[in-house]
Amino acid sequence: MGTILCAGLGPGDPDLMSVRADRAIRAAGHVAYFRKKGRPGQARRIVEGMLAPGVTEYAMEYPVTTELPFDSPEYIACLAHFYDDWANRLATLAQTKDVLVLCEGDPFFYGSFMHLYTRLQGRAEVQVIPGIPGMVGCWSATGTPITWGDDVLVVLMGTLPEAELLRHMQSADALVIMKTGRNLPRVRSALAAAGRLDQAWLVERGTMPGERVVPLSEVDGTDCPYFAIVLVHGQGRRPEVIE
Amino acid sequence: MGTILCAGLGPGDPDLMSVRADRAIRAAGHVAYFRKKGRPGQARRIVEGMLAPGVTEYAMEYPVTTELPFDSPEYIACLAHFYDDWANRLATLAQTKDVLVLCEGDPFFYGSFMHLYTRLQGRAEVQVIPGIPGMVGCWSATGTPITWGDDVLVVLMGTLPEAELLRHMQSADALVIMKTGRNLPRVRSALAAAGRLDQAWLVERGTMPGERVVPLSEVDGTDCPYFAIVLVHGQGRRPEVIE
Repeated sequence: MGTILCAGLGPGDPDLMSVRADRAIRAAGHVAYFRKKGRPGQARRIVEGMLAPGVTEYAMEYPVTTELPFDSPEYIACLAHFYDDWANRLATLAQTKDVLVLCEGDPFFYGSFMHLYTRLQGRAEVQVIPGIPGMVGCWSATGTPITWGDDVLVVLMGTLPEAELLRHMQSADALVIMKTGRNLPRVRSALAAAGRLDQAWLVERGTMPGERVVPLSEVDGTDCPYFAIVLVHGQGRRPEVIE
Repeated sequence: MGTILCAGLGPGDPDLMSVRADRAIRAAGHVAYFRKKGRPGQARRIVEGMLAPGVTEYAMEYPVTTELPFDSPEYIACLAHFYDDWANRLATLAQTKDVLVLCEGDPFFYGSFMHLYTRLQGRAEVQVIPGIPGMVGCWSATGTPITWGDDVLVVLMGTLPEAELLRHMQSADALVIMKTGRNLPRVRSALAAAGRLDQAWLVERGTMPGERVVPLSEVDGTDCPYFAIVLVHGQGRRPEVIE
């Protein structure tokens, strides 16, 4: 019996994955990863140059990404079938071999691997190596601490309705907003309503080549990068310099 | 001119620090870390066996921890003086050599290093290596994903007043509560009032020797471990298995 091991890859810079993930990736004989059809895929790109010669690769290509609304029955059925299918394939593979699944960031934090993880329970030995979440790489890229003292940090998805975004933005000290992309205008509008637009940063490709850190208020309204996170830093309690 | 480099150590298991942090720690000639007076210190313990022979160590010992209320003027003045003093010492050291500062978890996420970082701006070259936050190690230890789909994650400090804890607990999908310890009874009471105590887990020493994962409702009221995080997992949108 083999093991299915999911390695969190961290925020994007290969140097920022854990020692354990690095070792597992270099030793793996069978490597699976999600990607959009026809694209190299971000997870695969992070491990470029690390895979052993002769490795067998399994590209798990999403059947849909943004063509259908994410809450439509068609989208849900299509993705459920996709995850069922790959869970079956990985469970079969794991009867005779070890399989490594690559996952950007941390696998248990909004990761696609979780949909395989739940389906594989009781059918294969599954282990997970945690990783630095993408948001941590993004706040590092700003060069400013995200939370101090008693700060309340709220992590929001840009897909939420504007009223919900606003409500959470008003109650938080520090903010992380993920899944921005085409939702960026709504995110910006909610931040403005909450009086926090001036403190917000857009971080694109944090820790990766092409990293970009800009005040959100200076971003053009039509500029909606997909791999971007919006951050508002907390200002909490801290012992000040005494004169 | 040397550099002050702060390495995030991750949640505790040395195998979970980043490749870059691992490399920097093994190569360092001058290593500083915070600790409570008279204790070995968690950061120093994580790197045990990794430091180069002949390394010079600087134990930055907190003058107070829990002897004074954290919002009292005496506590604030005492800590400010402590950070001023070590910022001065590190800035002087960095005039002639590279210094590595160890920091548990991620340095920019509620880390003590931030108090040195702000004081050192403009006085020395300071770089930070991100790490896996302790909370990520803790939710990994539960074997259950923390957030799905559009889940809202809220990170709270157990030091907050109960009414504030309750308000945030009611509005979040997934919860992380840090700085529990002697605040655990208040955290438990707020979770019960929010109707979420039955879903809460206590994780002590996540990813470290002596790791303990238990339902919070089963923890004795007098049992307040210091290095413990309370978690409530999100249950958000996920494509279900189709029959």
